Amino acid sequence: MRDFLPGDVRRRQYVIDVVRRVYERYGFEPLETPALENIETLTGKYGEEGNKLIYKVLRRGEGESTGETDLALRYDLTVPLARVVAEHRGKLPRFFKRYQIQPVWRADRPARGRFREFYQCDVDAIGSTSPVVEAEMIAAVSEVLQTLGFRDFVVQLNHRELLTAMLDASGVPPARHGDALIAIDKLDKIGRDKVGDDLVARGIDRTAADVCLGAFENVSAFDALVSRSERGTSAAANLAAITTLTESGPAKGHVQFTPRLARGLSYYTGAIMEIAVPDLAGSLGGGGRYDGLIGMFCGEQIPACGFSLGLERILVVMTERGMFPADVEASGPDVLVTIFDDDLAAESLTLAGELRSAGLRVEVYPEPLKGGKNLGKAFKYADTRQARFVAVVGQDEVKNADVKIKNLRTGEQQTVARGTVADAIRANLQLPASGHQP
Amino acid sequence: MRDFLPGDVRRRQYVIDVVRRVYERYGFEPLETPALENIETLTGKYGEEGNKLIYKVLRRGEGESTGETDLALRYDLTVPLARVVAEHRGKLPRFFKRYQIQPVWRADRPARGRFREFYQCDVDAIGSTSPVVEAEMIAAVSEVLQTLGFRDFVVQLNHRELLTAMLDASGVPPARHGDALIAIDKLDKIGRDKVGDDLVARGIDRTAADVCLGAFENVSAFDALVSRSERGTSAAANLAAITTLTESGPAKGHVQFTPRLARGLSYYTGAIMEIAVPDLAGSLGGGGRYDGLIGMFCGEQIPACGFSLGLERILVVMTERGMFPADVEASGPDVLVTIFDDDLAAESLTLAGELRSAGLRVEVYPEPLKGGKNLGKAFKYADTRQARFVAVVGQDEVKNADVKIKNLRTGEQQTVARGTVADAIRANLQLPASGHQP
Repeated sequence: MRDFLPGDVRRRQYVIDVVRRVYERYGFEPLETPALENIETLTGKYGEEGNKLIYKVLRRGEGESTGETDLALRYDLTVPLARVVAEHRGKLPRFFKRYQIQPVWRADRPARGRFREFYQCDVDAIGSTSPVVEAEMIAAVSEVLQTLGFRDFVVQLNHRELLTAMLDASGVPPARHGDALIAIDKLDKIGRDKVGDDLVARGIDRTAADVCLGAFENVSAFDALVSRSERGTSAAANLAAITTLTESGPAKGHVQFTPRLARGLSYYTGAIMEIAVPDLAGSLGGGGRYDGLIGMFCGEQIPACGFSLGLERILVVMTERGMFPADVEASGPDVLVTIFDDDLAAESLTLAGELRSAGLRVEVYPEPLKGGKNLGKAFKYADTRQARFVAVVGQDEVKNADVKIKNLRTGEQQTVARGTVADAIRANLQLPASGHQP
Repeated sequence: MRDFLPGDVRRRQYVIDVVRRVYERYGFEPLETPALENIETLTGKYGEEGNKLIYKVLRRGEGESTGETDLALRYDLTVPLARVVAEHRGKLPRFFKRYQIQPVWRADRPARGRFREFYQCDVDAIGSTSPVVEAEMIAAVSEVLQTLGFRDFVVQLNHRELLTAMLDASGVPPARHGDALIAIDKLDKIGRDKVGDDLVARGIDRTAADVCLGAFENVSAFDALVSRSERGTSAAANLAAITTLTESGPAKGHVQFTPRLARGLSYYTGAIMEIAVPDLAGSLGGGGRYDGLIGMFCGEQIPACGFSLGLERILVVMTERGMFPADVEASGPDVLVTIFDDDLAAESLTLAGELRSAGLRVEVYPEPLKGGKNLGKAFKYADTRQARFVAVVGQDEVKNADVKIKNLRTGEQQTVARGTVADAIRANLQLPASGHQP
C-alpha cells in the first residue's frame, strides 16, 4: 500500500477527471458504495482463490477477543453494484447506467504493478440485452483512452457463447468448459503445446484438445466449428451486430475479434472484451456481459454488461510514455507571495487574496523576511516549489501602490501597478485575462 | 454505512470540487494515504475511547485462524499525515501545505448525522509557527464556505495556552487541566451549574471551579486571569496577531474570540478553532495548532497546524437549506437519443457521438422502437430520467439529413438540420454555442 504525494495525486486526478467527464457525456451516472460490505455479500463470488484474498474486519466490541469477523473490504466494484441494484431497484431507472471510481483491496502478495489497494474505474449498464449496450460501452472506453492520448490500443472482442459452441463442437464435454477456458486463457503466455498438455491434464481427451487448439490458429476452422450449432451462429450474429455498431464511433478501427480471449471470471454470459496496448503484458481493462449475477442477489434475472479500467495500469503506461500534459506535471504555485517585514503581513495577505480572486494559485511564504534580509531564503524556497513568480511588497511598493514580481523561468523582474498584477502574471502564464473568478 | 446513489454523489462531488479548487488556490497540495495503516501507527493516538473505535483487519493467511490483526482502517487524516511527514521528509518542501479529502472509519454506534464511514476534508500546514499559517487557514476555510453559499458562519477562535494560563491562575492544578477542559467543553450543552459539579467531581476544588467558570461569563475577568502570566500574555498576543491578519481576507467579520472553546483532542498546543452555524448543534469542522504530534513519529519537533471540514455535516446543512445549484440537482442527460428501428441504430449512435463531441450529456435508449411503435415507452423513460430533450432519427430524417428534437420542459417539437442539432440544443439549455470539445 502506498502514499500518494502531490505529484502522484495530480496525475491520478487528471486521469480520473477525464474518465468521469467522458462517462458523464455517455449518460453514465456516478455511484459510490461503502468500503466495508457484509462479509456474506462478498464470499462465494470470486472463486476459491478470490475468497482467500478478501480482507476481513473484526466485529466491533466482542470480536476483539473472539476474532469474529462480520465485515470485509470491497474486493471489486461489480458485486457491490449487483447488491445495490437488487437493494435499490425501485429507485433506479429501468436502464441504469452507472460509473464508479473507487479503490478495492486484495490481500495479494505485492508485485510490480500489483498493489493491495488499487482503483478501478467501472462502467456498467443494467437492464437491456441490446447490442447497443456493448457498442456504447466500447465507444465510451475508447473515447476515454483517446482523450488521454492513447492511439495504439486494441479492443479485443469475443463471446462466451461462441467459445461454448466451439468447445462443444470440438468434443470438450460441458463439465470441462470452465477448465478449458482457464487453460486457453494462457495461450499467449505459454504457447499451444503447453496449453494442449494442460487441457489433457484437466481430463480433456487429446483429439478434442487438438481440434479446439487448431481453431485458434485458423479463423475459418473456428467459424466452421461455431457454425455447427444454433448457439454458435446466434452468438456470432450478436458479435457482428456489436462490431458493426462500434464502427459509428470512436472505437472505429480499434476493435479486433480475438477468438482466444476467454477472461477469467466465471460470471460472463455473452460478449467479453479486453484492452491491449503493445507495451503492457496485461490489459488496461476488460469486461463483458453478465446476465446472471444480479439474480444471485434478488432472484430476478436482470441483464447487465460492464467494463472496468485499471487506473494503476493506465498510469504506468502514461508515465513510461510521458503522456501527461505539462500543467499536470508542473504542480508548483503560480505565485509565491512574500512578507517583507512583520508589519507588512496584512498587506501581503491582501495581495494574495486579490491574486486568488483572479484564479491564480498562490502560496504565501509564512515567515517575514526581516526587511528583505531573508529574501534569498524565500527565492530558494520558490525554486524548490517550482513557483512561476515571486511577489514582493516592501514599504516603497506600499507607498507607490505597486508590486515587484519576478518571473523565475526568465529571471525577468518588473514593478507592476497593484491593480494589474494578476493580469500581468496571467498574461505571462498564457492564461486569458480574467475578472474575478467564482 | 451507506450507498450513494447518483444524486447523492453529485452533491458530494460538487462540495468536494469546491473544496479542492479553493484549497489549490491557497497553495495547498493534494495528498492521499492508504485506507489501511499498520495497527501500531493508529493505536495510542486517539485516547482510550478512540482506540476502541478503530476497525481492525485480520492478518492475511494465518490471521484467518488465529484472529491476529496487523492492519487497521484510517481513523482520521491527521495521524497518517504525521506518519507521511516523518517518512517522506526529504521529498517534501520545507513548508508542506497539503489537503486531503478521503473517507475515515470509526466503529461507532450509528446515529443521526453520525456514520461509520465518513469523509474528512483536511488542510494542514507543516513547518512554520508564524501566525500567518493560522490566518491563511482560516481564510481558506472561510472561502470554501462562502463559495458554497454560507453567509452566517462563525469561526470560533481560542488558544490552548490561554486556557492553560487561565486554569493556572484560577488555581486548577496542572494535573487536572485535561479533565477541566473536557468538563468546560460541555458548557454550551449542560450549563454552568452542572459543569461546576463536574469539575468538583473531577477533583478540582469549588473555589477554583468558581473562579474559572466566572471567567467564561465575563471577558474582562478572563483577561485579568490570563494576563497574570507570561504564558497567558504571549498566547493573547499570538491570538491578536492571528485575528488581525484574518481581517485582510474572506474571514473578515466571521472570526469570534470564544474563551469556552476547548476542543476534545489532547494534541493541540496553540490556537484552536471551530466553525459554527446557527442551525447545527455540532460544528462544521475544527482544527488547531499541534506542534508535538509529528515528533511522536520522527523524534524531531516539527510545528504544524490543521483544519478539518466534515463533508457529511456540510451536506446536511446545505440539503436542509436547499443550497445546491440547479444543475447539481437536475442530473438527467441533456438528450435522450432513440433508435427508431433496428436498421437505424448506427445512424442514431453517430448522432449521439456528434452531440457528445459538442459537450452534451447524451444517453441512448438502447432498445429499437420498432418503427416508432414504442416511441411512447422511450418518452416515458425520458421523463423518469429528467432528460431535457429527446432526439428521433427515422427514415425520413435520414433522407432529409435532419433530426426531430422535442424539448421535454416546453413540449415544443422541431425538425432541425443535422449539422445544427447540437447548437440548437445548447442554445435551449443556455449553454454557449460550441465547437468540438476536447
